[in-house]
Amino acid sequence: MLQSTIAKIRPLDRAFFQKAQAHLDSQTKPKGSLGVLERVACRLVAMAGGEAPRVDPARIYTCAGDHGVAAQGVSLFPQEVTRQMVTNFVMNGAAINVLTRTADVDLKVVDAGCLGGRFPDHPALVQCKVAPGTRDLSTEAAMSREECVRALENGIALAKAAHADGIVTLGTGEMGIANTTPATALFCACLDLTPAAITGPGTGLGAEGVRHKIAVIEKALALHAPTIAKADPIDILASLGGFEIATLAGMILGGASLGMPLVIDGFISSSAYVAARAICPLVAEYAFFSHASAEPGFAAVMQRLEATPLLHLDMRLGEGTGAAMAIFILRSAANLYTDMATFSAAGVHSGE
Amino acid sequence: MLQSTIAKIRPLDRAFFQKAQAHLDSQTKPKGSLGVLERVACRLVAMAGGEAPRVDPARIYTCAGDHGVAAQGVSLFPQEVTRQMVTNFVMNGAAINVLTRTADVDLKVVDAGCLGGRFPDHPALVQCKVAPGTRDLSTEAAMSREECVRALENGIALAKAAHADGIVTLGTGEMGIANTTPATALFCACLDLTPAAITGPGTGLGAEGVRHKIAVIEKALALHAPTIAKADPIDILASLGGFEIATLAGMILGGASLGMPLVIDGFISSSAYVAARAICPLVAEYAFFSHASAEPGFAAVMQRLEATPLLHLDMRLGEGTGAAMAIFILRSAANLYTDMATFSAAGVHSGE
Repeated sequence: MLQSTIAKIRPLDRAFFQKAQAHLDSQTKPKGSLGVLERVACRLVAMAGGEAPRVDPARIYTCAGDHGVAAQGVSLFPQEVTRQMVTNFVMNGAAINVLTRTADVDLKVVDAGCLGGRFPDHPALVQCKVAPGTRDLSTEAAMSREECVRALENGIALAKAAHADGIVTLGTGEMGIANTTPATALFCACLDLTPAAITGPGTGLGAEGVRHKIAVIEKALALHAPTIAKADPIDILASLGGFEIATLAGMILGGASLGMPLVIDGFISSSAYVAARAICPLVAEYAFFSHASAEPGFAAVMQRLEATPLLHLDMRLGEGTGAAMAIFILRSAANLYTDMATFSAAGVHSGE
Repeated sequence: MLQSTIAKIRPLDRAFFQKAQAHLDSQTKPKGSLGVLERVACRLVAMAGGEAPRVDPARIYTCAGDHGVAAQGVSLFPQEVTRQMVTNFVMNGAAINVLTRTADVDLKVVDAGCLGGRFPDHPALVQCKVAPGTRDLSTEAAMSREECVRALENGIALAKAAHADGIVTLGTGEMGIANTTPATALFCACLDLTPAAITGPGTGLGAEGVRHKIAVIEKALALHAPTIAKADPIDILASLGGFEIATLAGMILGGASLGMPLVIDGFISSSAYVAARAICPLVAEYAFFSHASAEPGFAAVMQRLEATPLLHLDMRLGEGTGAAMAIFILRSAANLYTDMATFSAAGVHSGE
């Protein structure tokens, strides 16, 4: 399933960008005056194969998983919070619930690999737990290659299910106590960055906590150096990642294979994107980065990816909260492209 | 009406900010992790007198006016476009129509002082034309003091009408060919900036056009130097402003006097804000800056105002387009504050 999905990811046709920009230039506004919204609209047109850009309906999958490396004391919160937050998501109490309602985005919660047993069934919950938490990446591989592939294929299945439900746009979200640690390790391994340069406080570590987290990530990178050197992206993801990260990486590959606009949430989701991009660089064609995470290493990651996030709201929560807000930006861009009058139709002088 | 309005503008109670932050810190997320949204929520709580923050219903008034200085060739578009765009607004064809629909914001169009006669009546159009266009600010005062006060009072009346209609949040918008010229002149006169430092291309002037525009603004500032030196904010606004700018300045004063959250659009709207702030500095308590205009002088203006805009989308259209999108940000902040579960209610460990 993974290989056939990768084989289906296609580059966008550049001719559609020019066609879209010509349409935007005929609409009643000074040329280029909608800035980023025009660039978003052009990409959406290309993803729609030259037709009217579409964004809705949109869905965010908030994927949750636990991390063996939490035992190293790299997070302010105890590990049980992952499971508690999944329940909070299902009960509509979390930030992502509020923001998906506000932005009119569908939300599904995913147990990608939380500690403990199966959750009670719920219509908003997708249960595809690969295992109850990863192993400690600072002492062994977080996942076996087989586990990692299963998580990737679970993510592909999520994208396919959304597409089958008529969903147009996919947003990523995550929850997993300690998951800035595997995310940071993945950025270092895939983007040639160092833990000292990009490790941050996550949910709120102090300076001493950040120093300890750097040491844990350095230890993990040293342990897995032979795997990193071999540069097999699935082995690297298995060694350093997490179940929610691998599931999201699969979702990104699956969404791209279906031509869906992909809205990447924040720090952790971007590590899933980086893992997916290492597997198939063409995912870049379909990805929008929703917001500039306040996690200090995020700017360096965006620079490496030559990407600019849509929103700059100093958020650092994850869950898909930035993706929910960014989907409103995509919707605005699509509606402008479709609904604005042209100079000639409105009888407005075009200034030329 | 103007003096009694100014007298009613009150500072916000700082105690409400602390109370609001304590509530945000009890909600199921790491402290401070919603970044700007938390700061917006605190301000909205203070504007609501410590009660639950409210944003909706929201309305944008897009105020249009013409400018005598257009005769100096400071814009790429002919002056008739102001009137054509008012018709486009009323016929739902412009960017602001699309974005207010997308963001679920009410839109009213205002003839504050367009060239030509009265527009055909329309439910979406408020007709309060002070005069058919201003005079050329580079050769005489753009408005008489009496005209300027009438425009300010028209703006106060718009805010009062919105409040009477049950509107909670007011957004500003404008249309007026050549109006970056009076806006730039006002920034220079009120914020001690120079035309060479902050004059930009507006709707799309080339380098030569910008040099000419600088010369026109320098001439205007020299002509009105005695008025500027006297520092009477209404005389300065009359000399350098425009009818839509003065109407928006009045709306900002009126909205602040009613305790309404005010969402300031872009470059031109910010000049109306600067004029209102010169009349009553307390308007700062109620203002949100919607987006960082791509007009190059805007960053210097924000720096002088010690303000940070909410969105950074490289837009430079005006009309209220940035305000419409920013109202979604305010709504998101208010909903998070009101609807998120607390750690204790959701049974989630708070990490403490």
